[in-house]
Amino acid sequence: MPRDIRLVTETDLRRIIHLDLDIIDCIEAAFARLATEQVVMPPVLSMALPDVNAEVDIKTAYVPGLDGFAIKVSPGFFDNPSLGLASLNGLMVLLSARTGLVQAVFLDNGYLTDVRTAAAGAVAARHLAPGTVTTMGVLGTGVQARLQIIAAAKVKPVEKVLIWGRSARKAEKLATELRTALGVGVQAVPDRNELVAASQLVVTTTPAKEAILDAGCLHPGLHITAMGSDQEDKNELSPEILARADILVCDRTAQCERLGELRTALQSGLLGGSPDVVELGAVIAGQTAGRTRDDQITVCDLTGTGVQDTAIATLTFDRISKAQAGTLLTA
Amino acid sequence: MPRDIRLVTETDLRRIIHLDLDIIDCIEAAFARLATEQVVMPPVLSMALPDVNAEVDIKTAYVPGLDGFAIKVSPGFFDNPSLGLASLNGLMVLLSARTGLVQAVFLDNGYLTDVRTAAAGAVAARHLAPGTVTTMGVLGTGVQARLQIIAAAKVKPVEKVLIWGRSARKAEKLATELRTALGVGVQAVPDRNELVAASQLVVTTTPAKEAILDAGCLHPGLHITAMGSDQEDKNELSPEILARADILVCDRTAQCERLGELRTALQSGLLGGSPDVVELGAVIAGQTAGRTRDDQITVCDLTGTGVQDTAIATLTFDRISKAQAGTLLTA
Repeated sequence: MPRDIRLVTETDLRRIIHLDLDIIDCIEAAFARLATEQVVMPPVLSMALPDVNAEVDIKTAYVPGLDGFAIKVSPGFFDNPSLGLASLNGLMVLLSARTGLVQAVFLDNGYLTDVRTAAAGAVAARHLAPGTVTTMGVLGTGVQARLQIIAAAKVKPVEKVLIWGRSARKAEKLATELRTALGVGVQAVPDRNELVAASQLVVTTTPAKEAILDAGCLHPGLHITAMGSDQEDKNELSPEILARADILVCDRTAQCERLGELRTALQSGLLGGSPDVVELGAVIAGQTAGRTRDDQITVCDLTGTGVQDTAIATLTFDRISKAQAGTLLTA
Repeated sequence: MPRDIRLVTETDLRRIIHLDLDIIDCIEAAFARLATEQVVMPPVLSMALPDVNAEVDIKTAYVPGLDGFAIKVSPGFFDNPSLGLASLNGLMVLLSARTGLVQAVFLDNGYLTDVRTAAAGAVAARHLAPGTVTTMGVLGTGVQARLQIIAAAKVKPVEKVLIWGRSARKAEKLATELRTALGVGVQAVPDRNELVAASQLVVTTTPAKEAILDAGCLHPGLHITAMGSDQEDKNELSPEILARADILVCDRTAQCERLGELRTALQSGLLGGSPDVVELGAVIAGQTAGRTRDDQITVCDLTGTGVQDTAIATLTFDRISKAQAGTLLTA
């Protein structure tokens, strides 16, 4: 039986999908479903290609209640910049949750991943940061640094943003750009400990392989979201930070044990035999307490889940279909 | 940097890709590379969706020497027939092996899988069946029964084909169709043991969950390819058949231990502690002996590998590009 498949390029997606509150709410609802529904989310299929300095990750999740489910292919070819190409690319395929038929192919080169990753940061800020966040600090100067700031500003009335990067020039450039875009004070700072000291909400967005923050920077009323680590060799926070957190939250505990900050912390032994880790979805769904007092220290470890991909792909399909964007192919 | 992605429908693929000797040779070469090159082939990502009576498998393999690598998504939604839809669908994505960029999306609904699966049967027949195969027997009456016969006839001068199916009517229908198409004697038979007794080459293509052949049917000079089992609950051959084979061959041993005939045979204990299993690629590459005498009994367990998908996707991309078929999208 012939049917239409919608094929959508990155250009079309960037025109129609922006990081707005609806997307943040959509990602939040998806995390809640992870806690309350029989979500099927297999471990990430991760293929290392040392011959070509590359890796390919494939994520998927079936979420009851959503019309479709995404299969996301994320290739990272790290010699690409020498060819004038981006390292990260890829696409999402949306299948019908009822028939398995292909509904859409989003040739997004990772754009939807960028958006859903930043949206998860906003969800974590909404549920775990203290009631009042006047100052937000971000470590890193890449795409996620930029998007995490934009996302957090949609859920918290941030007055001031501090940015630290290994490259002071890049930090300054991002600060200048966002100052104009957000209309709040954005400042590049040279000392990351001072950044944390001044902030109620900190997001780490680096590809660091050794901790870039130590527990000495912790102070009452701080929330840290670490979203940089999504591989077995990455690490942004010292194990002591996770050990000293009053509430330690993961997007998916089993995945963070392999790919997130939780991995290093568990290896250190500082968390003890059965660490008290809760999942973000359980906090959202009210199954477990999140922050209960403004003076607590909370940490959220985000590695990126297939549930987010399925959520944003489903929302994107609705918007793109309504806009009649993309190319329809009868297959 | 904008670039073209080729999107190809099943209709276009069926017009340009047929099961010919070039494809069989291409699949054969891919198996050889599996033995001789540093192929990267992760375990199948398999997602069961009991809520909707479905499963989704994702396969991939990076094969040094090929320009691209495929990621194949195979959904099976087994209630689809009640909606007038096929159970099996899906697509293949071809990525550049040098940059990871998407080169093509083949919206094939499983067609390329059908072709590469049958081609593997022909490769097994070429390397493992006795020198002369005058009679071929096939168990099953579905798409693979049909294609396995067509494929084998391209590598062995078959004079007679016998078909057995649970449905005598379907067996008769397939026999009638192939008699005309192949121009050789094709006959539906009611007794599968008599079918095996009369054949030098047997291919089992059923979704059976319990053995449909016992060792009593074995005779000198017989080769059996079992290609029906690709899941943890399927089984076509009794463990005794594998135990009594002079040469036991797998497409990928580690995968057959989980998904193939080898699984049941190992569980039975009849193969002993360290069974003598060789891989098809090693036989093709001459690393290990295949059949050495016409009176040996050989068994080949095929579960389907990502290497085959990458091989046929690469060949398809070449042919489709030369034919300028499909739709080009700038992304």
